[in-house]
Amino acid sequence: MAIAYLGPEASWTHQAAREKFGQDVSCLPSKSIADVFDSVSRNTAEYGVVPVENSTEGAVDQTLDLLMDCDLRICAQILLRIENNLLARGPRQNIARVYSHPQVFGQCRDWLRREMPTVEKIEVSSTTRAAELASQELGTAALASPLAATVYGLTILEKAVQDRPDNTTRFLVVGRHDCPKTDHDRTALMFGPRDETGALFAALRSLDQLKINLRNVESRPSRRKAWQYFFFIDLEGHQEDALLVAAMKELRKHCDVVKILGSYPDLQNSL
Amino acid sequence: MAIAYLGPEASWTHQAAREKFGQDVSCLPSKSIADVFDSVSRNTAEYGVVPVENSTEGAVDQTLDLLMDCDLRICAQILLRIENNLLARGPRQNIARVYSHPQVFGQCRDWLRREMPTVEKIEVSSTTRAAELASQELGTAALASPLAATVYGLTILEKAVQDRPDNTTRFLVVGRHDCPKTDHDRTALMFGPRDETGALFAALRSLDQLKINLRNVESRPSRRKAWQYFFFIDLEGHQEDALLVAAMKELRKHCDVVKILGSYPDLQNSL
Repeated sequence: MAIAYLGPEASWTHQAAREKFGQDVSCLPSKSIADVFDSVSRNTAEYGVVPVENSTEGAVDQTLDLLMDCDLRICAQILLRIENNLLARGPRQNIARVYSHPQVFGQCRDWLRREMPTVEKIEVSSTTRAAELASQELGTAALASPLAATVYGLTILEKAVQDRPDNTTRFLVVGRHDCPKTDHDRTALMFGPRDETGALFAALRSLDQLKINLRNVESRPSRRKAWQYFFFIDLEGHQEDALLVAAMKELRKHCDVVKILGSYPDLQNSL
Repeated sequence: MAIAYLGPEASWTHQAAREKFGQDVSCLPSKSIADVFDSVSRNTAEYGVVPVENSTEGAVDQTLDLLMDCDLRICAQILLRIENNLLARGPRQNIARVYSHPQVFGQCRDWLRREMPTVEKIEVSSTTRAAELASQELGTAALASPLAATVYGLTILEKAVQDRPDNTTRFLVVGRHDCPKTDHDRTALMFGPRDETGALFAALRSLDQLKINLRNVESRPSRRKAWQYFFFIDLEGHQEDALLVAAMKELRKHCDVVKILGSYPDLQNSL
């Protein structure tokens, strides 16, 4: 069985994939989140692993946008505590430049402003790439994982520099088939309210009738019309549950688009 | 009067600032959105101009996060049609690498996958910086504005490569004082529902009683507790209107945090 993940090797997504699938599967690094979706759609991989949300820095927009358009199903979630470390070859006082991924800069924003206000921050495509650059250029550092320090022979100058100690990323496993019902599931769905006054609220009301504790609503541009949005929510229960079937029917009355993205076991692993 | 804006010079935000304030004010480029907020808070600038939302690529998270924590007021909005162009020194067939800002890569995602699937995409801090790099390195290109082509002596190889022709960015003007009421205002507000079952829905219901056509709800991590969120919405009307005062009172019953970010004239300029 092959698993596609957002690479490169030693990325947090790689660690999430290993956490879920163990050491005995073949893990294929992909260059982008879109490539992970492609590999699963084309059957090159059985499942794909991508980040969807960080507890400090918020949703990963590209994952939401891809879920909007593709036919893959969400099969599982993986929660991973994320520790960002300051890694370098030389001493801290020589650092004039720090490399990292934009999301990680967001997770460490307060720390950077306090501890390294004058240092240049350069956004790169992954924390692994950041560590690689820090290993090649003197006077630079990376914000990356302890694993990246080992892989690129860097020293950990400071551990856990993220602004929130409970900094956690939620990853999704996507596949081609729906998951069977367990006794504790979540269902992810997306909807696009009609272009009518009150349609967003009416759509939400049809969910409130279920007595769901809605904790969050993510919004993304529909990419069909300017200032028109699609909304992403997670509900308790499985898409086959009578209550959810009824809610979807009600929701469709107020929406042009309703799409169930998948039902998956609500496991709080690694937290 | 000095205006701070997200630089560098010739950025889209610079163009938005010029559109709003004309040529007779002194415009100060800032290195980051946080620096724009700082300049206004410390009275170095009278107003600041920052991007808040693009119609294709969605909210600018850092602007929302800064509005959450600072005491500045939203005083105006500026809408600017954004045209992304492929700029380079040499011919298109030689391009092995494209530089741009992550938001612009998002705005041109489908075009890039279709037209330049094998070309390396490198994220940099601004489209102006992308144009500068493309002017220095052969075999590279930038996705940037027509103005950047002029400033860095680059050729426009292809015009308007964004996925949506109506691609528009909404900018905010922030200042230290509330705006007086006009006959057509919008009010931006932020709220954090109580940690209770149904609190988000109850908060939204208190707004629905106003017969507001809620088109969008933006969500951001509260940065206080993992998986706790703050929500951003825009309403019609001024914060001094009796209806809004009543709604805020009702909203506070279900929220730990309610903050009016500002009331400002609802002008649809440059569209």
